[in-house]
Amino acid sequence: MNPDLFLQLDRVIHEKGRLAIMSMLAAAPELSFTELRDALTMTDGNLTTHIRALQEEGFISVAKSYQNRRPLTTCSLTTPGRKAFAEYISLLEQIVRQNKPK
Amino acid sequence: MNPDLFLQLDRVIHEKGRLAIMSMLAAAPELSFTELRDALTMTDGNLTTHIRALQEEGFISVAKSYQNRRPLTTCSLTTPGRKAFAEYISLLEQIVRQNKPK
Repeated sequence: MNPDLFLQLDRVIHEKGRLAIMSMLAAAPELSFTELRDALTMTDGNLTTHIRALQEEGFISVAKSYQNRRPLTTCSLTTPGRKAFAEYISLLEQIVRQNKPK
Repeated sequence: MNPDLFLQLDRVIHEKGRLAIMSMLAAAPELSFTELRDALTMTDGNLTTHIRALQEEGFISVAKSYQNRRPLTTCSLTTPGRKAFAEYISLLEQIVRQNKPK
């Protein structure tokens, strides 16, 4: 058991809601606010807070545009976000490996 | 990507410090407060708070005794704690599998 693994887990990504958002975005080029909200059954306020935290960290970029005259917000992973997420998943993998029943 | 996976992650175990404590205890029959604190480089206050949270959840049991006339506190996983931790690790494994580059 290597305790350092846990210290290395990115604090911002580790939060369950943000981990879900990062996972969704890692699997798609971009997703709209509505797609994320509906898939994750989050409130608007909750999702907005998480998106802001990820954006402040430089992990996702947010674009605002219009579709059929209605505002459209889309999110996508940045290159640093993709890298941080890959590192996070690699740490999880090591934690799982250390904890699997022999 | 299955968003339900994230919702199922146990909130109490998911916190980084408690995840570290649960992992250490899963790998040993029992550990003293001092062993945990030194391995995880936590403050006494921090470790006490986490231990209390895990104890309230019924995941660990705490025994107080004396060794060489000095108080000795030891922690170990309970059966429900071991089960909850195994479920948590199984969820992490599924999250890793869904997120690994193809």
